[in-house]
Amino acid sequence: MRTGLTRSAIRGLIGELVARGVVEEIRSGSAGLPGRPSPVVTPDPRSAVALALEVNVDSLAAAVVGFGGTVHGQVRVDRPRAHLSLDDIVGDLVDLSAPMLDPIRRDPTLLGVGVGVAGVVRRSDGLVRQAPNLGWRDEPLGARLGAALGVTQPVAVANEADLGGLAEHRRGAAIGADAVLHVTGEVGVGGNVMIDGRPLVGAAGYAGEIGHMPVNPSGRRCGCGSHGCWETEIGEPAILSLAGRPADGGREAIAEVIAAARAGEERASAAMEHLGTWLGIGLAGLVNIFDPSLVVLGGMFERIHPLVAERIDAVLDERALPASRELVTVVPAALGADGPVLGAAELAFEPFLADPAAHLRPARSVASA
Amino acid sequence: MRTGLTRSAIRGLIGELVARGVVEEIRSGSAGLPGRPSPVVTPDPRSAVALALEVNVDSLAAAVVGFGGTVHGQVRVDRPRAHLSLDDIVGDLVDLSAPMLDPIRRDPTLLGVGVGVAGVVRRSDGLVRQAPNLGWRDEPLGARLGAALGVTQPVAVANEADLGGLAEHRRGAAIGADAVLHVTGEVGVGGNVMIDGRPLVGAAGYAGEIGHMPVNPSGRRCGCGSHGCWETEIGEPAILSLAGRPADGGREAIAEVIAAARAGEERASAAMEHLGTWLGIGLAGLVNIFDPSLVVLGGMFERIHPLVAERIDAVLDERALPASRELVTVVPAALGADGPVLGAAELAFEPFLADPAAHLRPARSVASA
Repeated sequence: MRTGLTRSAIRGLIGELVARGVVEEIRSGSAGLPGRPSPVVTPDPRSAVALALEVNVDSLAAAVVGFGGTVHGQVRVDRPRAHLSLDDIVGDLVDLSAPMLDPIRRDPTLLGVGVGVAGVVRRSDGLVRQAPNLGWRDEPLGARLGAALGVTQPVAVANEADLGGLAEHRRGAAIGADAVLHVTGEVGVGGNVMIDGRPLVGAAGYAGEIGHMPVNPSGRRCGCGSHGCWETEIGEPAILSLAGRPADGGREAIAEVIAAARAGEERASAAMEHLGTWLGIGLAGLVNIFDPSLVVLGGMFERIHPLVAERIDAVLDERALPASRELVTVVPAALGADGPVLGAAELAFEPFLADPAAHLRPARSVASA
Repeated sequence: MRTGLTRSAIRGLIGELVARGVVEEIRSGSAGLPGRPSPVVTPDPRSAVALALEVNVDSLAAAVVGFGGTVHGQVRVDRPRAHLSLDDIVGDLVDLSAPMLDPIRRDPTLLGVGVGVAGVVRRSDGLVRQAPNLGWRDEPLGARLGAALGVTQPVAVANEADLGGLAEHRRGAAIGADAVLHVTGEVGVGGNVMIDGRPLVGAAGYAGEIGHMPVNPSGRRCGCGSHGCWETEIGEPAILSLAGRPADGGREAIAEVIAAARAGEERASAAMEHLGTWLGIGLAGLVNIFDPSLVVLGGMFERIHPLVAERIDAVLDERALPASRELVTVVPAALGADGPVLGAAELAFEPFLADPAAHLRPARSVASA
């Protein structure tokens, strides 16, 4: 992590963090190098935590996550794909998180609440501008959740694909990579780009809607209102239809198609071939646009990756600019379904990481009072 | 400009810059505000300069540009669209710049050389990886130019669309905008994204090749080797063919088509309609991907903008996600053909701006010797 702080400022800050119990200082081994070893500072996961929530198309989740990524408790419940009101979802999230939240609600170590949602989110206030797969438009998720949870800590909301990408960069398949494109898909297709460890968010936080890149302008109508978006070729309904299954079969139907393709079923294999080709076509464009060193495939694409990896590589060879092509590797995500929740926790820790001293001040004034 | 320096460090640095004559300090008026007015620091354009060069498909240019963007001298010559060797082009650039360069070659105020080229460039060493419209592949433009110019200053090379975007952000249509997409087109279509004043460069500097986003995968073969890239729908040859003109008519033929469309000629108007529609389709995807607050159209798109602005807006309304759509404005570039040269100068000043003190040190040791 680059902080822009001098070494002595960092030492002072670590001292404060240790005194507060937020991190532990562990002497590192000398590793055969000369000079006094630098201490290794490990976050104490029990003393700084975030409540992380997720609203996706198939499930709701709540977790308490320690600073550093340790999950202390997590619960996930399936939800029907029906369009539920904001009030219903907020009510469910409150119920889901209550057992974990109640013991720490007033605790100063609870630094914040992070929320991932399958929609286009205005980051400044957590307004969900558009979430076609939830049936939402301009729903004030952040504000409503803050009130309903009864917490005074900040509630930060972001798109769940963005948070999945953030988590893969901090804790998963993309640790240390300088330019990462994260592509995730279930019903919808979303994405996130991390450049030097910072997410590309755009003017208002809406960036990364790569599922709505037009790849086939005379193609199928998309849930967003346009035609031929990438999502209409590689999203769950497209794959299921091509495989001759009901388009609304959901996650279980996709699992069945994957198994059938492995067993050599023709329609299922054709659907995988189509998916590999169109994943490759869209990725070629995105590789040309972003020049990433790594592409991480998440969601259903992670599960399908072994079946389509070869086809994707072949299409990239054919369609991406050679200079960018030769730099990039396509890998499956490492965190599975937990990515967005871990990313939501990272989001909640961000104000603290940006200015740890400010967060320590209240505790110090209490101590000196 | 954000420097990460404290106010007192900045004062010290300005003192050194004034002593060296690189900047002038001018007392600002009080503007009716209380307190001691901050001095306004203006770069002294005569005392820190860059040599800026451009290799595009139709012309070569050389300029001496002062720190702050003042052009002290510039020369541009047309070139045929034939494929010329690296040696020929380097020779031409040396001849073109000699009258301006000779008087300042050994001058410490010449901070560097910046070069814009119509191709995919590895930023680390100025290798032109791929420039289909110049007929180049893996040509060491940066290294060869440094030797041929006989300068010891660094030679930095970048894609000319990237530099046009940088210049529009610093001195043109996008001053102060936080998330800007710059789209420029002649034969090829290129682009650049500036986020918070920093260009998106990708893992090796190849980012921004938006002309090679697949918008019509069963479409025409592209110069890059793929099919149906955006460039095949909105590049110069496509427009000229649609207007019933020879596809290789170049810049003058485009000017004639623009005049014909204004006069109501049917084929020319149909070509403009096609261009507006396909500019809109591609921009819708890029707006969804980047969430920019501003789209700047450069090159031939700047000249065509008045004829297609309405159509672009209509297609964006239809195809871009409403949340991102409502934030974005599409405007023509402000710097015309000079954009890439001004951007090349900015590129040459970058090492100085990143660490002004390091550049001042040699002069100080000379003074104290």
